[in-house]
Amino acid sequence: MTSNTAYEDLAARFHRVGVIDDALGILQWDQATVMPEGSAPARAELVATLSVLSHELLTDPQIGDLLDASDGNSDSTGDNDDWCGANLREMRRTYLHAIAVPADLVDARSRANAACELTWRSAREDNDYPSLLPSLEEVLRLTRDVAAAKSMALGLSPYDALLDSYEPGARSAAIDVVFADLAAFLPGFLQEVLDLQNSRSVPITPEGPFPIETQRILGRQLMRAVGFDFEHGRLDISHHPFCGGSAGDVRITTRYDEANFISSLMGVLHETGHAMYESGLPEAWRYQPVGGPLGMAIHESQSLLIEIQVCRSRPFLTYAGPLMQKAFDGVGPAWELENVYRLYTRVEPGFIRVDADEVTYPAHIILRYRLERALIAGDLALRDLPAAWNDGMKELLGVVPPDVRLGCLQDIHWSGGDFGYFPTYTMGAIAAAQIYAAARRASPDLEAYVAKGEFTPLMGWLREHVHAQGSRLVADDLLTAATGTPLDLKVFEQHLRERYLN
Amino acid sequence: MTSNTAYEDLAARFHRVGVIDDALGILQWDQATVMPEGSAPARAELVATLSVLSHELLTDPQIGDLLDASDGNSDSTGDNDDWCGANLREMRRTYLHAIAVPADLVDARSRANAACELTWRSAREDNDYPSLLPSLEEVLRLTRDVAAAKSMALGLSPYDALLDSYEPGARSAAIDVVFADLAAFLPGFLQEVLDLQNSRSVPITPEGPFPIETQRILGRQLMRAVGFDFEHGRLDISHHPFCGGSAGDVRITTRYDEANFISSLMGVLHETGHAMYESGLPEAWRYQPVGGPLGMAIHESQSLLIEIQVCRSRPFLTYAGPLMQKAFDGVGPAWELENVYRLYTRVEPGFIRVDADEVTYPAHIILRYRLERALIAGDLALRDLPAAWNDGMKELLGVVPPDVRLGCLQDIHWSGGDFGYFPTYTMGAIAAAQIYAAARRASPDLEAYVAKGEFTPLMGWLREHVHAQGSRLVADDLLTAATGTPLDLKVFEQHLRERYLN
Repeated sequence: MTSNTAYEDLAARFHRVGVIDDALGILQWDQATVMPEGSAPARAELVATLSVLSHELLTDPQIGDLLDASDGNSDSTGDNDDWCGANLREMRRTYLHAIAVPADLVDARSRANAACELTWRSAREDNDYPSLLPSLEEVLRLTRDVAAAKSMALGLSPYDALLDSYEPGARSAAIDVVFADLAAFLPGFLQEVLDLQNSRSVPITPEGPFPIETQRILGRQLMRAVGFDFEHGRLDISHHPFCGGSAGDVRITTRYDEANFISSLMGVLHETGHAMYESGLPEAWRYQPVGGPLGMAIHESQSLLIEIQVCRSRPFLTYAGPLMQKAFDGVGPAWELENVYRLYTRVEPGFIRVDADEVTYPAHIILRYRLERALIAGDLALRDLPAAWNDGMKELLGVVPPDVRLGCLQDIHWSGGDFGYFPTYTMGAIAAAQIYAAARRASPDLEAYVAKGEFTPLMGWLREHVHAQGSRLVADDLLTAATGTPLDLKVFEQHLRERYLN
Repeated sequence: MTSNTAYEDLAARFHRVGVIDDALGILQWDQATVMPEGSAPARAELVATLSVLSHELLTDPQIGDLLDASDGNSDSTGDNDDWCGANLREMRRTYLHAIAVPADLVDARSRANAACELTWRSAREDNDYPSLLPSLEEVLRLTRDVAAAKSMALGLSPYDALLDSYEPGARSAAIDVVFADLAAFLPGFLQEVLDLQNSRSVPITPEGPFPIETQRILGRQLMRAVGFDFEHGRLDISHHPFCGGSAGDVRITTRYDEANFISSLMGVLHETGHAMYESGLPEAWRYQPVGGPLGMAIHESQSLLIEIQVCRSRPFLTYAGPLMQKAFDGVGPAWELENVYRLYTRVEPGFIRVDADEVTYPAHIILRYRLERALIAGDLALRDLPAAWNDGMKELLGVVPPDVRLGCLQDIHWSGGDFGYFPTYTMGAIAAAQIYAAARRASPDLEAYVAKGEFTPLMGWLREHVHAQGSRLVADDLLTAATGTPLDLKVFEQHLRERYLN
């Protein structure tokens, strides 16, 4: 390696880390889609060893020295310096997160998370919270240790130190304000929506079966319309849908249900939104921290923008509704545009987050956000979680789960040690509304194009203002540059009113 | 890492190299089977970076110090010391091969090989040897530099230094003797076979089309019969069939032709032989040099043992013939056992190695062995290769290719820098005959089991005497332990006589 400057040396080291992480992306796609079941232990060895290798490269003390040597080197003001400066910022953030936690804590935590995830599967199935409690206590204890260590290193509160690893620059002080407003808005709004909905007839659900091969072909057709490039990506089947693969090879998955094509199709469009973000990241900065996606909130904003903002809208259904009807030889009133639209925008409070509609979803998130902050702060004991959960559900959604399976055991996140992740879902939903509104302001005929299945104007705008920005800006700066304001609840509320009260 | 001894430190380092190489195995499988075409440049970056990483870990000067410190440490005589000692031997060999060649030569050679492979594709298509000559000259020049460097480091002749990287411990002095005997035996034997064959009627070729899905199901059925474990492996489609994947996840590929099922089916059984070897390697030594396959000759012996020794034999066809007939609803004399057997053992001198039968195949190899030794020694100039090729074909097989496409341009090996690889094909064929004969001596009813589709006795014997030995012994010692003699042409000749003159 010949490196003239500390920066070039850093770039070479992070390039290598980025490449290993991309290789892990392919290994993980393989594991979820095509790997024979018996190969799981061998695959775990490959993934663990490559992860340790990547972590070792990232925590090499020389990186700290090189970062110090690079400080203040970007004193000219060209565009490239802007990117290099942002790259250094992201390098430092990544490095600080990595070195903050001692190796034995990293190891203990990763084992505890893996063990607890396993226990969670049976505990959920058996509807048995006490059986999960001991391993969840261990996960929480180690997560709090990690939060404390990162808090010291990053100068953030423990919870914000966790949050920052999912969404760089996000802080709970700002989320508190947004979520408080949202919690004040939602119950009344929900009641209005339900009243309106109840005043109308119940939409008719099209009857299947919907052959899986037809669903697959239709899914691929709509992916192509959105802009997905099958020369650089794939659509496959996995138990849990995801967007993965590597840079330049973005792969999404779905699962099919012969009785219901909407759920898979909307899932495919959701993952396509993630994929468009990944494949639009700046190629010149590939494998560098600044070339990666910004964080989970902005990532989710891109999937929700495609799935919810666009693909559950009347303009999109004007284009896609007839394609669906034709694909499945649908006849009768169930296939009329207005009926399809009302099916796609049906609101119904329920117990399960992943089944929730756009209006009730944020309530699920606000609940989890409050609870996990209290857990990390030590203000809530895990033995009191089921009761606190039910109280929150009653307050926010007016329903109380009959058991823990439909309550606090429904999500894997906490058992897997993912505290600080949940708020990014709703931050993403808010950002999606904001970004789509800005795109429509910039191209007033954008929805007319969507109604013809033409995504080029929308995608061109997203590429320029979001995807190709990589991690150059933190989320609020990106949103300000793209939409005029940082994360702004008002646009989201306005979107909900327009969609659900008209 | 806590390591008490130099040996443990070495084992940890080689474990890491082994894991990276396994990850590369999955990435390469992915590239050949499911990767979208446009992702090739991104994939090249992943493969190149991981290869460099593996090479850097392997050439760390500390490995040399640790090897020196480990010398003479295995003074007790337990079985484990035997394995540890062999592991150290393989570590040293791998290390010496890796450090022998300076990094800039490794790099120049890998670029020259890649460029020449590309040129070869068009040169072969255009039947244009002169267009390949400059890049092939460059490849040969760099290969000779590598051979010279390895010769110095390993204390071997330049050609043997190349050979040793494909088949550890193989030496051209021994091959010369075997191949000279074989070259003396083959022409007369071939004539005898052709005379006998010509005295009989020509076997009838079953008429297709043979649906691909049926071929796939039949292939999987026979793979299972041989012992392939689909819980730890896969069968897929690729342009060039291969056996790849990773330890504990062995994946083979094939390609299908609707007009001819035999070629794909025999290819599947060939790769299954490779796969059985890979999946039978000693699990306790996984990722260590001693736990890997011995070399290309023994690897090929396992594929040829399954494909040629077993699956083109009467006992196997007694079992598999009716399955084939049933799968394809075959009727008439083309499907009678004797006809099928004669189709499967048809001998016909031709120009193309990969299409050659068992009898003429070694002649193709002897020709290439002679020529590549002369090229490496500097005794043959590349401009004289086409003429030398045709002379050799005339001498060994009595046919002269009409053009270079059917002559010296047919194989990619030399354009890809693979000199020293060819002899392992025929060494493998000889070893296969020897090993199968030894297995039958040990279990006289082995072929009766094969005739019932029962491979457990054969596979149990191969596991114990070949697969589970990993790289504990060099090939001649393995053969001696398993069969009583080192590589022994007589058994192969006897096999040919029995199969082709009866």
